[in-house]
Amino acid sequence: MSNPVIAEVTRGAIVESRHTGAYVVVDRQGHVAAAGGDIEEAVFPRSAIKALQCLPVIESGAADRFGFNDEEVALACASHNGEPEHVRVARSMLKKAGNTEALYECGAHWPMEINAQHRAVSESGEPLQVHNNCSGKHAAMLALARRLNADRAGYVKNDHAVQRAIAHAIGGICDCDMDRAARGIDGCSVPTWAIPLRNMALGFARLAAPDYGAGRRIIQSVRAHPFMVAGTGRFDTELMQALPRVFVKVGAEGVYCGCIPHAGFGIALKCDDGATRAAEVAMASVLAKLDVWTEEEKQLLVRFSRHEISNWRKIRTGEVRAVDPFSPGEKEGPIA
Amino acid sequence: MSNPVIAEVTRGAIVESRHTGAYVVVDRQGHVAAAGGDIEEAVFPRSAIKALQCLPVIESGAADRFGFNDEEVALACASHNGEPEHVRVARSMLKKAGNTEALYECGAHWPMEINAQHRAVSESGEPLQVHNNCSGKHAAMLALARRLNADRAGYVKNDHAVQRAIAHAIGGICDCDMDRAARGIDGCSVPTWAIPLRNMALGFARLAAPDYGAGRRIIQSVRAHPFMVAGTGRFDTELMQALPRVFVKVGAEGVYCGCIPHAGFGIALKCDDGATRAAEVAMASVLAKLDVWTEEEKQLLVRFSRHEISNWRKIRTGEVRAVDPFSPGEKEGPIA
Repeated sequence: MSNPVIAEVTRGAIVESRHTGAYVVVDRQGHVAAAGGDIEEAVFPRSAIKALQCLPVIESGAADRFGFNDEEVALACASHNGEPEHVRVARSMLKKAGNTEALYECGAHWPMEINAQHRAVSESGEPLQVHNNCSGKHAAMLALARRLNADRAGYVKNDHAVQRAIAHAIGGICDCDMDRAARGIDGCSVPTWAIPLRNMALGFARLAAPDYGAGRRIIQSVRAHPFMVAGTGRFDTELMQALPRVFVKVGAEGVYCGCIPHAGFGIALKCDDGATRAAEVAMASVLAKLDVWTEEEKQLLVRFSRHEISNWRKIRTGEVRAVDPFSPGEKEGPIA
Repeated sequence: MSNPVIAEVTRGAIVESRHTGAYVVVDRQGHVAAAGGDIEEAVFPRSAIKALQCLPVIESGAADRFGFNDEEVALACASHNGEPEHVRVARSMLKKAGNTEALYECGAHWPMEINAQHRAVSESGEPLQVHNNCSGKHAAMLALARRLNADRAGYVKNDHAVQRAIAHAIGGICDCDMDRAARGIDGCSVPTWAIPLRNMALGFARLAAPDYGAGRRIIQSVRAHPFMVAGTGRFDTELMQALPRVFVKVGAEGVYCGCIPHAGFGIALKCDDGATRAAEVAMASVLAKLDVWTEEEKQLLVRFSRHEISNWRKIRTGEVRAVDPFSPGEKEGPIA
């Protein structure tokens, strides 16, 4: 592993833990604007490409046919906390498309946000599939199944029309041969395909192309409802609330994707060890270094590239901070 | 960072994430029996050395004076789940030493084990200090404060008699100058001192010396009550239940310490990125490679050095597995 350190965790005066990783920023033509580490290794994008998985839901006409609003399109792209607002919107999506919670094949888990979880303990007494952080994506997939006149049972399977449509969309926008991509099963049981970081970033640069209607709809929906894509206390929600000109999305195992529509850039990042805490601050740092922001935006991004760690008595014990991804020795630097 | 990969996480047919780290096995004389990576860098042992923090509780006579039984000594060395059994024993320790929960300075957090957490939500309605995974250690520290006739208020502070006694014990057994060690504040507000892995391992080899009464008492207590040191579903509890001839203890940020009393070895390990999932399987793998086990014990350890990952619908998606720590290229190999 020769990937650079992208984030470190301090305690007192010393570095306690270190995270390595790779990242790349490309434009719509695929030119690399900035990069560090191995950007050609195929990695599973996991939930970081939910916006791309949502493309066939828009392009098939399913979203229009069932009248999905911006909030609902945002939830289709979410890894949400399972808070009451998320559950409400997921249920609305199911209802609009004539589906039910029993059709879900994402599996049940407790809401990720602790207060929502404790509320669910007393209300439902058990974790529900609608609490699953992917329940918006799955409601969208079920709607797509209806639109395609396909069986709803088995919509998570690799050879189902829904997943074939999604693979086709991802392959097209990321310029990947999906038939040759290594395939895994995601936490919510749908396929995930291994894609080089460079291609993921290309997909997000293209998603943000000014003349791409489906991409614009997805990005505008998420920007209008950043709470929907994650929730209380979450990095994606807080960053997009603070900085509406950026789109970012976390994936499991330390993956991040995003785009900067006004600059025409797509971005992909992977922390080698899978740590979200590192991927978050590193993503903010990669964004901050690009010369495409106002001074105020840049300062915001710098702030998101580190945060304090406090213990149970709120005593500051250290911090999680990005390590400058454009330090000397990298092949490519930031561009104007 | 030149530390080797010690664990990897697969999904489908590919490696999704990788963890690097360092580890060392030493005997009581400090001779290195096996090692990989940088064993001289000082790292915070965190909770992995709770057994050493417990030494002054035994050696001062506090444990005898207040009649702590084996279960209570085991809880003093624990990072427990906050399950009802753990809470019961912590409260017993407080009561025996004339202390109360109000004297705790560890801070409150919800029980780590999810069923215990949900039970606490309905029973206490808020996280309590006695739920803190360190509440046994803190009950022991409060007992030590009484034994030393010291103020109980402020027992977590670096210059308090309790922490001075603990620093002295750690410095002695690990052969470290604690006045020069970098110091941080732990999650439970007590000091943690940065110690090279080699010295941590030495401390655990010496802890298990046949003629060291305090060490023997601690190790025997934990082995007799492995549930007390962690709890339901936890690696330390399950490994020691399966393999009573080993002592292991996890610490935050990917640290492990342990010893093999019958072989006279102490062990210390740190995953660079702080991941517990990697430290666990790597610890099992380091243990498995030592030629000090019966064939049955060795097979058990091999089993603990990897485990499947299943998703919310119990579909197998991959595994977490140790990467052979003694592969060619390491400076030292396993010894007989």
